[in-house]
Amino acid sequence: MDKHMKTPNRNPLGRHWLVELQECTTAILREVAEVERIMRAAAATANASIVSGHFHQFQPYGVSGVLVIEESHFTIHTWPEHAYAAIDIFTCSPDLEVELAIGQLQTDFGAQQMEVQLFKRGSLLMV
Amino acid sequence: MDKHMKTPNRNPLGRHWLVELQECTTAILREVAEVERIMRAAAATANASIVSGHFHQFQPYGVSGVLVIEESHFTIHTWPEHAYAAIDIFTCSPDLEVELAIGQLQTDFGAQQMEVQLFKRGSLLMV
Repeated sequence: MDKHMKTPNRNPLGRHWLVELQECTTAILREVAEVERIMRAAAATANASIVSGHFHQFQPYGVSGVLVIEESHFTIHTWPEHAYAAIDIFTCSPDLEVELAIGQLQTDFGAQQMEVQLFKRGSLLMV
Repeated sequence: MDKHMKTPNRNPLGRHWLVELQECTTAILREVAEVERIMRAAAATANASIVSGHFHQFQPYGVSGVLVIEESHFTIHTWPEHAYAAIDIFTCSPDLEVELAIGQLQTDFGAQQMEVQLFKRGSLLMV
C-alpha cells in the first residue's frame, strides 16, 4: 500500500448540536431578558468566549437570540405557545464543554423533554 | 377508529438547513465585507426580513457572521485555509425561498461541491 496516498481527513472542522427543548416553562420563553441571561450563562459554562450577543423580542410573543462566540455560535428561537425552544450550538473548538451547557439549558428552561442531535461539519471532502 | 383521537402534529415549527460549501473561492472566504455582502444578498433572495447582522473577522483568517431575520436566522463560518464554509439557515416561515438562496450562495462563494441537509425542528412531541 502506498503510504504517500492521500487519505481522507475525518476530523471535522466544526461540531454542531441541534437541541429540541420541549415542555419548557413558558413564562421564561416569553422574556427576552431571561432568555438572554440563560444563554449567556450556558455559554459561560461551556467556557465559550462571547464576541457579541443579539436578542430580539417578537410580537405577540417569542424570542430570537444569537451569541457569536470566538468558537462559532449559540442561537435560540422560542415558541412560548408550544412551550418549545430550538437551540443550536456550533463550535470549531474541541475544548468547549457543550454537553455541560446543554444540560444547564434543559434545567434553566425547565424542559421536561429534550432531544439532541450532533453533526460533524466540514469533514466531507477534505484530503 | 375514534376520530377524536389526538394525532401527532407533524408540521414542524421550523426548518433548518445545514449547508456545506466546499472548494470555494478562498479569497472571498477571507473578507468579512464580501462574506456579509453575499449573505445579505442571499437573505434578500429568500425574501427574508433582516432584523440585524453581525459579522466578525478572525485572525489569522476566517469570518463568522449571523443575520437575525424576522423568520429566524442565517449563520456562516468560513475556513479559507480549507476553502470551506459552514452555513445554516433556520426559518419558521414556510414562505421563504431558501433553496433559491442556497443556490445563490453556492454560486457566489464559487463552491465546486455542496452538501445540503434539511431538518425539521419542533415537530417531535406536539399533539
